[in-house]
Amino acid sequence: MKLGFIGLGRMGKNMVLRQLEKGNQVVAWNRSSEPLEEVKKAGAEAAKDISDLVSKLETPRVVWLMLPAGEVTDEFIDQLLPLLKPGDLIIEGANSFYKDTLRRNEKVAGKGIHFMDIGVSGGIESAREGACLMIGGSKEDYQKILPVIKAAAWPNGYGLLGPVGAGHFAKMAHNGIEYGMMESIGEGAALLKYSDFNYDLREVFRIYSIRSIIDSRLISWLRDELMEDPNLDNISSVIGSGGSHKKVKAEAHWTVDTAKEMGLEVPTVKLALKVRENSDKDKENSPEGFRNKVVAAMRWQFGHHPVKKT
Amino acid sequence: MKLGFIGLGRMGKNMVLRQLEKGNQVVAWNRSSEPLEEVKKAGAEAAKDISDLVSKLETPRVVWLMLPAGEVTDEFIDQLLPLLKPGDLIIEGANSFYKDTLRRNEKVAGKGIHFMDIGVSGGIESAREGACLMIGGSKEDYQKILPVIKAAAWPNGYGLLGPVGAGHFAKMAHNGIEYGMMESIGEGAALLKYSDFNYDLREVFRIYSIRSIIDSRLISWLRDELMEDPNLDNISSVIGSGGSHKKVKAEAHWTVDTAKEMGLEVPTVKLALKVRENSDKDKENSPEGFRNKVVAAMRWQFGHHPVKKT
Repeated sequence: MKLGFIGLGRMGKNMVLRQLEKGNQVVAWNRSSEPLEEVKKAGAEAAKDISDLVSKLETPRVVWLMLPAGEVTDEFIDQLLPLLKPGDLIIEGANSFYKDTLRRNEKVAGKGIHFMDIGVSGGIESAREGACLMIGGSKEDYQKILPVIKAAAWPNGYGLLGPVGAGHFAKMAHNGIEYGMMESIGEGAALLKYSDFNYDLREVFRIYSIRSIIDSRLISWLRDELMEDPNLDNISSVIGSGGSHKKVKAEAHWTVDTAKEMGLEVPTVKLALKVRENSDKDKENSPEGFRNKVVAAMRWQFGHHPVKKT
Repeated sequence: MKLGFIGLGRMGKNMVLRQLEKGNQVVAWNRSSEPLEEVKKAGAEAAKDISDLVSKLETPRVVWLMLPAGEVTDEFIDQLLPLLKPGDLIIEGANSFYKDTLRRNEKVAGKGIHFMDIGVSGGIESAREGACLMIGGSKEDYQKILPVIKAAAWPNGYGLLGPVGAGHFAKMAHNGIEYGMMESIGEGAALLKYSDFNYDLREVFRIYSIRSIIDSRLISWLRDELMEDPNLDNISSVIGSGGSHKKVKAEAHWTVDTAKEMGLEVPTVKLALKVRENSDKDKENSPEGFRNKVVAAMRWQFGHHPVKKT
C-alpha cells in the first residue's frame, strides 16, 4: 500500500522506516531535511512540499500526519484540504485532544475527506519495532488501511475502538494512567533512595523488573536508565509536563479536565500532573527532586523527551 | 537442598510445589490438612507439628515461614525458637513490615539463630512458575540457601539487597508503587467506561497490554478479568485494603507511615490507600465504584484476594 507521511520527528521517522521495511510505499515530507534524507535512503520518496506529496499519491489518497498536537496539526490539515479530493483519507496520529479530533473531522468531512485518529503508544523503540495503536474511525476506512496499520503495529497491538475520536480518547485515558504510574514509581524509588539500607537502585529495579506485580515497561525503562546513570546525576529534576513542544498543554491536563466535565474523579492523575507542574520548585538533592528525576528518566528512555541536564 | 516450610496458603503451597519440582526436599506443615496432603502427593514430607518438622531436618536447618504477616508469624517464630539450634536459619517470606523483621531478627539472633527476609512478589502464578524475590540477610546465609532461592525465583528474579530488613523494605516500596499504579489504572478505566464512546473495555485493555507505555502485568491481569466478566459484574466495589487477614494493616499503610517518618512525600500512594479504605462508601454503579472494581479485579487475578461478590 502507498501512503503519504508528514512529520518525521522521533516517532514519525521510525514509523516510516517500519512501513518501508514491511513493504509499504511512503511519500514523506518533513520540515527539516535530515530525517527526510534518512527515510529516502531507506526507500521513501521525498516530497518537496505538501503539494508535491499529494501529487505523488493515487486517489483515494491516504496521508498520515505525525506532527505535534495543536496548531501545527491544524495548519497542515488546512494546507492539505484544498489539495485532497473527496474520498481521500487523513490519519491523525499525534497526541491530540479528542475534542480537537472531533472538530477536525467535522471540518474535513464537509469536503468529503475521511478522517481517522490513531493514538500511538510505546515510545520511540515501539515506533520502530511495532507500536500500540488505538484507532478511531469508520469500519470501511479501517479495513482500507489495514495493511498500513498492521505494518505499524506490534503483532495484534491495534484495534478499531469506535468512531472518530475513540482513538484519541483512549490514548488520553492511557496517558492519565501513565502519569499516575510514573508518579508512584517515582515515590517508591525516592523511599528506597533515602532509606537507611543504602540500596543499589540498579539491583532493586532489576529485580522489580522480573515478574513482580509491578513488572512493566516503565519499571524496565527506569532500570535501563539506572544502569547507565545509577544516581540519575545527568537527569534534570524538573519534569516537562507535556511533549517537547511547550505550547501544547500536557496530555494529562486533558484527562483531568475531561474527567471533571464528566463529573468523575481522577485524583492520582490530577496529583501526578500537579507534581510535574511544580517540579521546578523541588530541590534537586531532595527526595522530591529524586522522585522527579525518576519520572524524567522514564520519559527519556521511552521518548527521548528532553530531560538531560545541560 | 532440604528445607522446612511452614504455611501452605495460596502462595506457600505453590512455592513448595515449585521447590519439589526443582529437586529440593521439603518438610512441610500447615494448619489445615488439605494443602498438606497436596504437597505430600507431590513429594513433600508432611510434618505432624512444628516439633516434628524441626526433627525431620538436619542441622544447620533452614525453615521458610510463609504465614500471614503480624501475630501469626510471631507465634510461629516463638514456637520454633526452643526447637532450633544456633546456626539454624529462619527465612521469613511474609508481607511483613520491615521494622517487625528487624525486631524478630534481634530476638532470634540472641539465640544464635540466623534470619533472612524475603519479599515475594508476582502473585500466585509466579509462586508456582517463578517469583520475584527481594532478599535481606547476610552474604553467607544468602550463599547457603542459593539453591532454594534459585528454585523459587523466575530466572534471575532474585538478589540480596542488603542486611536483614532490606528485603521487606524493598517489598514495602514495591507495594506502595503497586497501590498507586492500580489506582491510576482504575481511574483511567472509569473514564473509558463512562465516556460517550461506548467502549468495549476488553478490546481497549487488550490493546493497552500490547507494547503501550502502560503495558504491564497489572494491565494484563485486568484484561484477563475483563475477558471473563466484561463489566466486572461479579466483582465487589469494596476493595480490601490489606491481605485476606483483616487483623493485618494494609501494606501501603506501612509505606505511608514510613515515608512520613522519613520526612518524605508519597502522595499518590497515600491517596490510593485512602481510596481503598473509603471504597465501602462508593456506590457500586458509579464511576468510583467501577474504579474500585478495576482495582479489585487485578487483586483477584494476581492474588485471588477475596473480591468476588457473594
